[in-house]
Amino acid sequence: MKIIVDNQDINYTKLLKRPFEDDKKITETVQEIINMVKVGGDEALKTLTRKFDGVNINEFEVDPLTIENSQGYVDDSLKKSIHIAANNIAQFHNAQKVKNVRVKTMPGVSCKLVYRPLQRVGLYIPGGTAPLISTVLMLGIPARVAGCQELIVCTPPPVNPAILYACKLVNAKVFTIGGAQAIAAMAFGTTTIPKVDKIFGPGNAYVMAAKMQLSALGIPIDIPAGPSELLVIADDSAIPQFIASDLLSQAEHGIDSQTLLISTSNNIITHTINELNEQIQALPRKQIAKKSLEKSLAIKVENLARAIDISNQYAPEHLILAVKYPEKWEPYIENAGSVFLGNYAPESAGDYASGTNHTLPTSGFSRNWSGVNLLSFMKTISFQSITPHGLMNLGSHIITLANAEKLTAHANAIQVRLDKTINNFKL
Amino acid sequence: MKIIVDNQDINYTKLLKRPFEDDKKITETVQEIINMVKVGGDEALKTLTRKFDGVNINEFEVDPLTIENSQGYVDDSLKKSIHIAANNIAQFHNAQKVKNVRVKTMPGVSCKLVYRPLQRVGLYIPGGTAPLISTVLMLGIPARVAGCQELIVCTPPPVNPAILYACKLVNAKVFTIGGAQAIAAMAFGTTTIPKVDKIFGPGNAYVMAAKMQLSALGIPIDIPAGPSELLVIADDSAIPQFIASDLLSQAEHGIDSQTLLISTSNNIITHTINELNEQIQALPRKQIAKKSLEKSLAIKVENLARAIDISNQYAPEHLILAVKYPEKWEPYIENAGSVFLGNYAPESAGDYASGTNHTLPTSGFSRNWSGVNLLSFMKTISFQSITPHGLMNLGSHIITLANAEKLTAHANAIQVRLDKTINNFKL
Repeated sequence: MKIIVDNQDINYTKLLKRPFEDDKKITETVQEIINMVKVGGDEALKTLTRKFDGVNINEFEVDPLTIENSQGYVDDSLKKSIHIAANNIAQFHNAQKVKNVRVKTMPGVSCKLVYRPLQRVGLYIPGGTAPLISTVLMLGIPARVAGCQELIVCTPPPVNPAILYACKLVNAKVFTIGGAQAIAAMAFGTTTIPKVDKIFGPGNAYVMAAKMQLSALGIPIDIPAGPSELLVIADDSAIPQFIASDLLSQAEHGIDSQTLLISTSNNIITHTINELNEQIQALPRKQIAKKSLEKSLAIKVENLARAIDISNQYAPEHLILAVKYPEKWEPYIENAGSVFLGNYAPESAGDYASGTNHTLPTSGFSRNWSGVNLLSFMKTISFQSITPHGLMNLGSHIITLANAEKLTAHANAIQVRLDKTINNFKL
Repeated sequence: MKIIVDNQDINYTKLLKRPFEDDKKITETVQEIINMVKVGGDEALKTLTRKFDGVNINEFEVDPLTIENSQGYVDDSLKKSIHIAANNIAQFHNAQKVKNVRVKTMPGVSCKLVYRPLQRVGLYIPGGTAPLISTVLMLGIPARVAGCQELIVCTPPPVNPAILYACKLVNAKVFTIGGAQAIAAMAFGTTTIPKVDKIFGPGNAYVMAAKMQLSALGIPIDIPAGPSELLVIADDSAIPQFIASDLLSQAEHGIDSQTLLISTSNNIITHTINELNEQIQALPRKQIAKKSLEKSLAIKVENLARAIDISNQYAPEHLILAVKYPEKWEPYIENAGSVFLGNYAPESAGDYASGTNHTLPTSGFSRNWSGVNLLSFMKTISFQSITPHGLMNLGSHIITLANAEKLTAHANAIQVRLDKTINNFKL
């Protein structure tokens, strides 16, 4: 962890720039995969699964009995923790329900905005050494709370029983297919994989590239996401042991994980670095965490206002405020995915179980994207009812505006109605 | 307008397929423009403006005095209509404000979801023969209601005073730059054009291609939009003269505008076609409307439920329900951008002044995208506060989940805190 002392001349845009991988080879590989799936459907998926996962799969859908039986393979203590987490996530996302909006903008003119769930959503759950049970909950529960009719989970082989157990909990169909090919399958639909309305979920560089390429075709995605990030702001009330544990929980994700500490206290910075060196020894993922921390920065600032300012410029995915009165700083936080207030709100809590969503924008996108929330699974439809009297109030203004825009037929659609209304009044 | 009689064997997905233009030449031209602007900034913008608009512009920003003086060039009646429309739009979008969410998911665990305005938004207003005053209002007013700090309007030369007047109303900065180059400028920022957080607004095929290509880089856009669409569902209570006027108001937009009529009544279909032939004669944009109507369909169905079903499959941008009890059908409308209920709610009303937003998803995207609404200009940040006692309630479950995902440092971030808490309790 490198230490920097803040001064007004530092160009933070440059200093804190994320490593942007514009990997041409990934782009091209993913383009090719997308085209293969679009043209070849299930057969292409089989070929790609043989190639990338090294297995032959003839039936992508996991049969409901296997999903049902998964409960026999999951420890009771894990089940209990899954249920506790699920309950908190459900509560927080339930509270995000919004009422339909109804306004009479003028006498006789009523406008409505109605929220509707997306019908079928696609949830990608990455594979690898560890089953991301929490991601099934973070995507599946809000989808259920929103009222989505069908949840499609794609996840690479082999599928862990704990993943199936979580899928059972959110009543999702599960397909054993991973990578960019899974994303393409959900975008276009194949004979066995249903076409979805929106694609959610994290993944490696290939999965992300597929999501971004497909979003250029108008397919909605949850968020653009790169390597995970944590910024900790600490004053001298912070506890270095805790800060170090949080930075390490971020650093263990991958060698490209981004960790930053901004503190008003030299003492806190020094002690945190000591704690890092100590705590890292016991970690199974020590090598990954070490590599990640090599690029990490500690910035010494004069005051907390300046720390918040730098944080807003960086726009972190996760922000921990390990300061004495964290609530005081809430209104000044402009850009962050999820914020953890105080010494007893570690990032792990939000990652798993506090109730907030862990699917958050990275790479500075917390500036202009929301993390996944209930409304990520909904859309709006507007409605308007206008009475003949309402159209008499409004009609002449529509005609004036339509004429100014030289759209005569638009004006005419009002005029024919006004003529009729006036005739009716004459009767 | 071609007449089709509905039967169960008709493949509507195929029959109602929109003309999808995958124009390779446009894609490549736009790629080139985006790269030019990214690398060359303002100088590239000058070159491109010379090339595409045939004018030399050295100062892209319209000076505030010119904006201020625009009021002298706008008719009082137009000003009044602009204000009436603006007021209705403001009312409807004001009513869409949502409260921040606060939930205690467990004792000692508080979660919040906070809505924040995007800081700087880019609004593209197309040029051409007619000034799209209404689009300035439809984008600028919700942005102001949301609380966005800065509104950047880009519009090609020459800029009509009525556009400037509307920009003044919403307090936007205006830049005389059009086309794909304007979209790229707002995405990356140049010396004179500010980089924005999200790009809104309609445009021609080049503008749309630029928005879609940039969305693959994570730059948020309002909606993917193609040619405008209207579907009218009519029973025998409908008035053919009105339906025809509405279909024509859609058809006059462009030769690729999509118009559909679905009716339970042969009589309504026949009379509407007669009315179309009559009303079209008087239109200045007769040739455009005629070409558009050539591809138009009238579908005769057995009952309204079937009409709604076909409409949901088509997922129209605009849907008029010219039926006796339109409200009755509201719950069954799954996919539509904006819905107009009854004989006195023409599409023109929503286009200009009822208060609903006219920036709506086309090309079937009403299935999975929202039209522009207040929340299009906002983002969310989540917050969590956890007390030591709250972490004691939740901690063991986080540890269980983190261990199941083999993320030891995540579990450790909880354990170090629990150890401390337990020690404190011992004291």
